[in-house]
Amino acid sequence: MKLSKLYGIGVGPGDPELLTIKAYKILKEVDMIVTPRSSEDKRSLALLTIEGIINERKNEPIVVEPVFPMTKDQAKLDFYWEKAREEVLKNMKDMKGCETVAFITLGDPSLYSTFYRFLKIFKDVVDEVEVVPGVTSFSACSSIAKTPIAEGNEIVSIVLDITGNDNAVQIIKNSDSLIFLKLKNMDKIKTMLGNKKAIIGIKVGFKDQKMFFGGLNELQQPDHYLSTLIVKKEPQD
Amino acid sequence: MKLSKLYGIGVGPGDPELLTIKAYKILKEVDMIVTPRSSEDKRSLALLTIEGIINERKNEPIVVEPVFPMTKDQAKLDFYWEKAREEVLKNMKDMKGCETVAFITLGDPSLYSTFYRFLKIFKDVVDEVEVVPGVTSFSACSSIAKTPIAEGNEIVSIVLDITGNDNAVQIIKNSDSLIFLKLKNMDKIKTMLGNKKAIIGIKVGFKDQKMFFGGLNELQQPDHYLSTLIVKKEPQD
Repeated sequence: MKLSKLYGIGVGPGDPELLTIKAYKILKEVDMIVTPRSSEDKRSLALLTIEGIINERKNEPIVVEPVFPMTKDQAKLDFYWEKAREEVLKNMKDMKGCETVAFITLGDPSLYSTFYRFLKIFKDVVDEVEVVPGVTSFSACSSIAKTPIAEGNEIVSIVLDITGNDNAVQIIKNSDSLIFLKLKNMDKIKTMLGNKKAIIGIKVGFKDQKMFFGGLNELQQPDHYLSTLIVKKEPQD
Repeated sequence: MKLSKLYGIGVGPGDPELLTIKAYKILKEVDMIVTPRSSEDKRSLALLTIEGIINERKNEPIVVEPVFPMTKDQAKLDFYWEKAREEVLKNMKDMKGCETVAFITLGDPSLYSTFYRFLKIFKDVVDEVEVVPGVTSFSACSSIAKTPIAEGNEIVSIVLDITGNDNAVQIIKNSDSLIFLKLKNMDKIKTMLGNKKAIIGIKVGFKDQKMFFGGLNELQQPDHYLSTLIVKKEPQD
């Protein structure tokens, strides 16, 4: 059993209007949609983003929502990825004539997405792969704040967890602008950067998005992993 | 004379299908479209991206294409920005009932775009501003190469001109992945990074896009300023 095409689709930050026209067209036609979620009792946020498109369709696609728990335990992750693969293959078989699958991911597939992991465990059953880029959360965050991240020759760095990462300390020192995704270590970042002008976006693009602007020292550690902190060393005049 | 709304719109990397649905809807309705170009004898590449949308419209928008020469001469730039402002204002006046203007920019407005400069010289005549994020050239480049830029906790840095920039040297040393935009100094980058696995995209997203993959040492300095180099220190297996 082979699949004629697997799409890796970035659905953007959460606002359905921030999907690309290309993603929209593919999601209207594809036979199966695979969307990861963090636990059995939580909905997939990527799926929430494209719910309107599924409702618009004449024929309903099969939607597979494998669970990938938030863990660094590699054995556990391998187990769940293999389970996801089996679930997709079983659905393909049951469906008969399932030719195309779209694996959707929030933001853009190039940055910290699960798509390439999925591709690795799945590529032996796929004839052709196409990746569709999407709008990142930091682009959306900057847009809402109406503040650019970088101009001229400024250097921008994207950092996730800085715990025990010596390179991150140097990066924070040498970049003109910093983007922290899935924001952790807020206290350490404050200590390192001082009271710079900053923006925090939580669930940016979704209906319940929250934005905070101010001096870095006034801002709090967000309570959701979909959080983006942008710090510019030279504030705009 | 006041404008009810100014939009700053990222039209993505060049492929009309990579526009967001939001950008598409606004560009179908807006009274005036402003698009920068680098010289009198060159077409605006951002405008080329949205040509299809303009052709689809029932009523044609006014299109203003101010020239911004590629120069670091601040006095010269100030002169051209003031000229652009006057050109837009004159067209608004001639048009009567011009309520909405979209300033379009390739990629995303948050990174190295001219939109925020335009906003600065123009904001006294605007009631409301909305920024619409777009897909970046590096997301598009990664998608075409089917290679992620970063996974896990990898640090990504975006660098432009590295000439005389000591911070850039440290950034190149400490980042896991590097994105060079408007690629210059290819020889220096090769010397600093060695023969790492790399991707170059030239005019990615446009019909005449070119992509080169290989060891960094095999790749040449591109002949167009719309060029993106992605280097990953730890190549994918």
